[in-house]
Amino acid sequence: MTQQRVSMPQSQSRPAFSSRGERLIGQEMFRVLDCAQALERQGHRIYHLELGNPRMAPPAQILEATIGELQAKHVGYAPMAGLQELRSAVAERYASLTAKPIAASQVVISPANMLIHQFLDITCNPGDRVVLFTPAFPSYWAAATHLGLEVVSIPLPARDGFHLSRVAVDSAVAAKPRAIIVNSANNPTGAVYDPSILHELVGRCGKEGIWLLSDETYADLAFDGSHVTLAAPQVGHIVVMSSFSKVLSIPGFRSGYALAHDAVIAKLALSNSTLYSCLPGFTQIGCVAGLSVLDTYADAVRTRNRRLIATCHDRLTQGGLLHGRHPRAGFYLFVDITGTGLDDMTFCRRLLEEQHTAVTPGRCFGDAYASHIRLAVCGLEEDVLEGVSRTIAFAQKLGGCRVQAA
Amino acid sequence: MTQQRVSMPQSQSRPAFSSRGERLIGQEMFRVLDCAQALERQGHRIYHLELGNPRMAPPAQILEATIGELQAKHVGYAPMAGLQELRSAVAERYASLTAKPIAASQVVISPANMLIHQFLDITCNPGDRVVLFTPAFPSYWAAATHLGLEVVSIPLPARDGFHLSRVAVDSAVAAKPRAIIVNSANNPTGAVYDPSILHELVGRCGKEGIWLLSDETYADLAFDGSHVTLAAPQVGHIVVMSSFSKVLSIPGFRSGYALAHDAVIAKLALSNSTLYSCLPGFTQIGCVAGLSVLDTYADAVRTRNRRLIATCHDRLTQGGLLHGRHPRAGFYLFVDITGTGLDDMTFCRRLLEEQHTAVTPGRCFGDAYASHIRLAVCGLEEDVLEGVSRTIAFAQKLGGCRVQAA
Repeated sequence: MTQQRVSMPQSQSRPAFSSRGERLIGQEMFRVLDCAQALERQGHRIYHLELGNPRMAPPAQILEATIGELQAKHVGYAPMAGLQELRSAVAERYASLTAKPIAASQVVISPANMLIHQFLDITCNPGDRVVLFTPAFPSYWAAATHLGLEVVSIPLPARDGFHLSRVAVDSAVAAKPRAIIVNSANNPTGAVYDPSILHELVGRCGKEGIWLLSDETYADLAFDGSHVTLAAPQVGHIVVMSSFSKVLSIPGFRSGYALAHDAVIAKLALSNSTLYSCLPGFTQIGCVAGLSVLDTYADAVRTRNRRLIATCHDRLTQGGLLHGRHPRAGFYLFVDITGTGLDDMTFCRRLLEEQHTAVTPGRCFGDAYASHIRLAVCGLEEDVLEGVSRTIAFAQKLGGCRVQAA
Repeated sequence: MTQQRVSMPQSQSRPAFSSRGERLIGQEMFRVLDCAQALERQGHRIYHLELGNPRMAPPAQILEATIGELQAKHVGYAPMAGLQELRSAVAERYASLTAKPIAASQVVISPANMLIHQFLDITCNPGDRVVLFTPAFPSYWAAATHLGLEVVSIPLPARDGFHLSRVAVDSAVAAKPRAIIVNSANNPTGAVYDPSILHELVGRCGKEGIWLLSDETYADLAFDGSHVTLAAPQVGHIVVMSSFSKVLSIPGFRSGYALAHDAVIAKLALSNSTLYSCLPGFTQIGCVAGLSVLDTYADAVRTRNRRLIATCHDRLTQGGLLHGRHPRAGFYLFVDITGTGLDDMTFCRRLLEEQHTAVTPGRCFGDAYASHIRLAVCGLEEDVLEGVSRTIAFAQKLGGCRVQAA
């Protein structure tokens, strides 16, 4: 190939970034991952508890179906709203869960993290208020901040097991937000909210014309096997989103979905087309295969997580680091490190550098949680157990783990 | 699994969308694809010339590497800026093309369409001006409109073969934009711009503090094998982006990259993390394999496209539909349909419904092009040839194809 070189001017000052550019904060746990991987490239073994990156083998059917598509060279563009087969399969699943008819046109496929951003983008103008019940998943903060929204935090008290209460719902609505995000089962607390209070939240939002995003990424991972969904595409103000990443152990597939009114789904599909055209078709065919075995597989995931959460919870409690209620879902432990005398950023940095154990700083879930860290126990079991031991040992070395009054 | 049903309120009016939500226009060719696929589900055979969706078999190495990753169950999260291996491989390639050192930290991996949006997002505030040389790729319009930017069109005259001229550069800079997007080799015209004029554009932008996005998605597909890149990470105001989709025939992999100053790359990585966390790792490993055979493979793609473009160009010219210069790159033909008496939207709709041939309306490339259509000849050869024949026959049936004065 001939190379025509264009001679370039010398280094020049960079023009300024936009305000939105300046407001990008990203997700801290991905920065922790970057630091951890830099240490790995230096030859260190790192214990990964920073990301909710499930390491259970995914269902073989998913891999087989995806590989089959690649072998058939199905590597072209897919529809902007997602493959019809996958939209239909998701619609069927939720029709069964809700015992209501749900159409494929009421489902859009998009990465779950993207859907958070897309929801806020299509519903909120800069300066609008959005309510988060805290502690809250970092992507809500990142998306809201990037879009220039005002975040109103409604803290859920640790003493109540971080549960959503009627008082919290009242406070949320009283803030007169344009949108509310609710996340049950919850990341990072593992709380599963009372369906009657969720119902109240839905009704209040409808009455007040508030958009409601229900992030149900962990809804399939409640330890008791219950599944609460707010999916109701006949209702105009509710958007339900979820992900295949956690329940099927395929975070790298970057596939999730939303269920909402046809008009909202059409808007989200336009957003897909504007932002990134479409998702790969072969990963979506993999997800179709995954849905067909989801119930059985999710049962194995829940069993594994429940056991590991219990083991880690016990060890952290005995180590003086943890108190409060046992998570009821998911694979996270939200740990108070006040007793160590370190703030979360310092604790996490030193834990990584000195103990090669990666965890997520609590402030990512809200400014009020700089005395917490989040541990993800969905990784390789030996990583998780060793990482938890190292976290306890490190905290104890720092002057003991005084149990905080919950 | 127990299902706890939350009883839902009856249908309620939907709250309003945001201004940004109302400004989503998406990419028309994906809507055409949706309509075409709906006809296919009814059992019709459709001739696809709407999307730049290459149907040549991709390099076997890409599929093998991707499948290998899936077999190894590498389905976890990847770094937000992209896999180190892929960033390094892209950096090496551009270091070789430019004969300048380029570091992996000056490369970010993201879908190319997304990078257009991300570039405008981090550089332009709502109300800022962005210059497009038209006809221009629909995603530029979609992203700019969504972000509330004012698009200034600088039309490149058909009589000059749609080439970038010094006059056009003067007009672009005189508009005092915050950013300019330049696209050589060009979609939809197939023009390859003069390197000395591109150099002038770079210099003028640097002097005036204007951000410059160089979309080089088709740079590897110039028929003469030349490759012009503006990549110069030492310069603060230039962002070069490209895609693996077209040159490696893997649009479904949804992978592209940008080269820029470290500070800009760090910002784009934060944008990745905020918007969608990361891309799949297994597709990125596939792209690493693709880069190792890119030169050989691209040569085959160029040979195939040059031949097919020539055949189609001749047929369209003989059919009275086409005039003007032969494309010098890529796989598109931008065809003037003024002679048919129909506008582009009506022509495309009827061509799809009556002749089962899908093409893209010209107005997607700028309002001034409602008398044009774009044909993509990268599909299956039999589809392309039959689709072109049907397009000609349809145009002739409409009252002849009067050749327009170019």
